[in-house]
Formats: sequence, C-alpha cells, structure tokens
Amino acid sequence: MISRIAILGTGLLGTSVGLALRAAGFKGTIAGWNRSPEHGHVAMKMGAVDSVASDPIETARASQVTVLAVPIYSTLDFMEKLAPVLGSEHMVTDVGSTKRLISEAAARLYNASERAAFLPGHPMAGKERGGAVLADANLFRGAVWLFTDDSAAQRSPHSAELVKSWREWVVAMGSKVLDLDPVRHDELVAWVSHLPQFTATALSALLEEEVGCAPELKDVGGRALREMTRLGASPYSMWRDIAHTNTEAVERALLALEQRLARLRENLRTPDLRDEFEQANKFRRE
Amino acid sequence: MISRIAILGTGLLGTSVGLALRAAGFKGTIAGWNRSPEHGHVAMKMGAVDSVASDPIETARASQVTVLAVPIYSTLDFMEKLAPVLGSEHMVTDVGSTKRLISEAAARLYNASERAAFLPGHPMAGKERGGAVLADANLFRGAVWLFTDDSAAQRSPHSAELVKSWREWVVAMGSKVLDLDPVRHDELVAWVSHLPQFTATALSALLEEEVGCAPELKDVGGRALREMTRLGASPYSMWRDIAHTNTEAVERALLALEQRLARLRENLRTPDLRDEFEQANKFRRE
Repeated sequence: MISRIAILGTGLLGTSVGLALRAAGFKGTIAGWNRSPEHGHVAMKMGAVDSVASDPIETARASQVTVLAVPIYSTLDFMEKLAPVLGSEHMVTDVGSTKRLISEAAARLYNASERAAFLPGHPMAGKERGGAVLADANLFRGAVWLFTDDSAAQRSPHSAELVKSWREWVVAMGSKVLDLDPVRHDELVAWVSHLPQFTATALSALLEEEVGCAPELKDVGGRALREMTRLGASPYSMWRDIAHTNTEAVERALLALEQRLARLRENLRTPDLRDEFEQANKFRRE
Repeated sequence: MISRIAILGTGLLGTSVGLALRAAGFKGTIAGWNRSPEHGHVAMKMGAVDSVASDPIETARASQVTVLAVPIYSTLDFMEKLAPVLGSEHMVTDVGSTKRLISEAAARLYNASERAAFLPGHPMAGKERGGAVLADANLFRGAVWLFTDDSAAQRSPHSAELVKSWREWVVAMGSKVLDLDPVRHDELVAWVSHLPQFTATALSALLEEEVGCAPELKDVGGRALREMTRLGASPYSMWRDIAHTNTEAVERALLALEQRLARLRENLRTPDLRDEFEQANKFRRE
C-alpha cells in the first residue's frame, strides 16, 4: 500500500534505505532531501532516490511515509515542524540511535486521531564513516532493526496500516525486527553500542598520543589492534547527539568499564585474572 | 643452509610456522614435539611436521634450528635445559609475546663462543583461539615479526650464519622484520597488543554480566560489538604468562586507559568530546 516515500537526509543510512528498498522490490517513488543538495544528487545517481527536493516539509506532505535519517536533534526539529502539516494519511519514522526523547516527542506530537503516525526506529547497522558514497543496499541484511513504539494504541486505522506496511518493508530489507521499550532501548544500546564506540575512541586517542608519532609501530598491532580501533574513525558529528541524549546511561556504562579495568589491573598476577578471562569467554561462547 | 628444524610446541603458532615454511619452499626435515602427543599428530597430518618426537631435548640436539612455540615460562624452562646440551652448531629462536625475560636469559645462557645462538622473536600474528587445527600457512603473511636480538655481537660466525638464514626464512614466510630493543618491545606491545586484549576481556566480561542473560540482545550490537569483543574469546592460558612477565608496562597502559575513559565520561556534554574524537580519528588516518 505504500507507494510514495520521502527520505530526509541522504547520508549513509538514508541512502542505504533507498537502495535497500529498491533491492527489496519497492516500485513506488522515493523523493530525497539533503541539507547540502550535492549529497542528495549523489544518492540520486546511485539510484537510491528518484528526485532531490528543495523543500523537505512539502516533500513529506506529498509522501505517505517519511524517513528521517538525520542526527537526533535534527530529527526532533523535523518532528516539531512536520506534526502540524501532516495528518492521519501520513506516517513518519526515523533511524536515530537514541530513542527516549524521540519516543516522548512522538507521544506528544503524533499518534493521535487526525495526527500522523510516528514509528521510532533504530537499525543497528552503520559504518565508521558516513556519507552517501558508502551506502549499501545490503547494509541492513542480518541486522536488528529496533522499534520503540509505545504509543501505537492511539493511532487511526489508516496510519496503523502504514506502520504495519513499513515494518514489512524493514523485514524485506533483510532486518530482524525487535520491539523494545524506549527507556530500555537507550539503556541497552548504551552497553552494546555506545560503550564499544566510546571505548574505541578513548583507546585510539590514547594510542595516537603514545605511538602515533611512529606510524610503522601501528603495523605491529596487526588485526587485533585494527579491529579494536576501527571505530576510532567515527566522526564526532555522528556521536555528539548520542552523547547528549543518552548521557546518564553512557556514564554508567563507562564508569563500570573503568572499574572493571582497574580490577583487572590490580589482579594481573592473581587468580582473579582467570575468572575475568572465563567470564569474557562466556560472552563469546553463547 | 638450514636443513633440519625442530618445532617444540605444535599449537597454533608452531604448526603455522611448519606450514608457512613448507609453503615458502623449505625442503629439509621438520621434527615436531608437543606436550600432548595427539596434538603433535594433528600437526603431522596437516603437513606441518614430518615426525612427532617424544624427547624434545634430543630432537633439538639433532636439529640445526629449534623453534620454541610454547608459553613464555615454558620457553624460559626450555632455554635453561637446552643451553648446556647445544653448541655453536645450533640456534634456538622463540615466538613469545614478551621479550625482556627471554632476552635476559639469552644473554646469560646463549650467544657466547661454544654456545648456541638464541634469537628472541615475536611474530605479531595469532587468533583469538589456539590449537593446531586453526593453523594457517598464511598466518604470518603481511604481519610484523619482531626480533629483540641485543647479544648478537658475542656469537660464533657459524651460529651467526644460522641466525641470518632464519631471518631470511621469516621474510620468505611473508613477514616484515623489525628489530627492537627488548625493553622497548615490551613497552610497545603493552600498548598495541596487550592493552587491546585486556580491554576486550574486560569489556566482554562486563557485557556478559549486563546483557549475557538475554542472548538475543547480543545481536543488537552488530559488527561493532562483535569486533570489540572478538578477543574476549582469548584463553587465560595464553595470557597468564604475558600478564606475569610484562606486569608493570600493562599496568601503566591500563591505568592510562581508565583515566582516558573517565575524562571522556566527564566530558560527554562538553567540547572536550570533540577533541577526543578528533585525536582518535588521527590514529586511524595515518
């Protein structure tokens, strides 16, 4: 039933959504918008969108489904601007990495009768560098796509249908759908996504200080070092909004890792080190 | 000039050395020994060694080059036992991950006239799990193979020739040779190898505690989480000797990371976070 989609933000994720929809057999129109139009044109040349719009609000109004693929604060801005101009014939979804603030805005601004539906979403897929040129029709294949849809009950039947249909397209793009409470979502991703990222950032920054002046020494670390620092290439611009909108949960996770490292450090020569390795082995076994 | 090699310890590294030598065109004999003979027979079936010996000392005496591919304390034991029975017609090398104690033992027990040569070595290659069955003829291809040979001057011309020839075989196995002072070696690997390992162990152990009871949630982390915890599968048996023989350098590195994570945690909402990301980006750029 979905035949007109708008993708606002044609970076890595937005452009990949367009490519993945096409690969999954979506035959309708896909309009793109990007803050800098030249990046929108890259997405169009790649076949992710059919056109590059200049007015994002007008484009959303002309579509049935609008995918917000911009940083979190921009997503919140768009939610405010779109809510008054869209109606129950529309739905909006997003791909932001934290969901509490977005779900709160969805409950406040959307999902009432006469209002558009809003489905907060978070595909657990990405790359350490952004941009349309790195987009990939298979980015979401095998990945988990989280939804934190806690205000579904208030929707009109028509917008509920749009939501159901979008969830089917997400499965068609190759993702496994998982529903979570938004607060639980933000706590969980603090552990399994934000903590690994900030750890890689701190480790990479530290190593830059310690061995950065001798580039030949970076080779010494081999594959293990490359993997543990790959996320060190992630840009601040992508992670600032995450740090700002999930601060408490990330603080808890970082503090827990600091304490764990300190305990390991104090036990390098005691049997406690064995327990720590065995606990770590378990995480990788299951 | 090398035609008889003994590999003592046919785990992942020892067996891979045998396979890599064959792949590089080594035509001489390779005798294997392993604490548990059945693992020696796995290496023989894979073509890494021609025979499985029961007496490691006798096997070393019958060879020109002996490769010690056992944990560090076992390497130190073998160094003590082999020194009195070998002479300047022999050389011994190793693949241990810390080099200060081994280089000290080499200076004390080897590398004098009438004594065998000892070349402390450390290929920066491995896998998160050990064992002959995971051995790979290409394991050392593109890897850095470190030597910390600070007592070369004392050698007899014959054993110096054996050392030169072994270094050529290392290059033939596809490695890039790099020479380091042994103390500098242990400091460097504390940063680029041991710190990443212990960080992955602490992170994996922590996540096992936080989300281990809900295995479906591990999928949520995707590739980033898999990479950041792959080394969590590394066994204690491989890392105990490293923790015991490079304690001070590893302690320094761990403490520095704890402090770095604390600073990042305290600055999640300040411009300092940008600086940290930019510093990390630099490490991945060069």
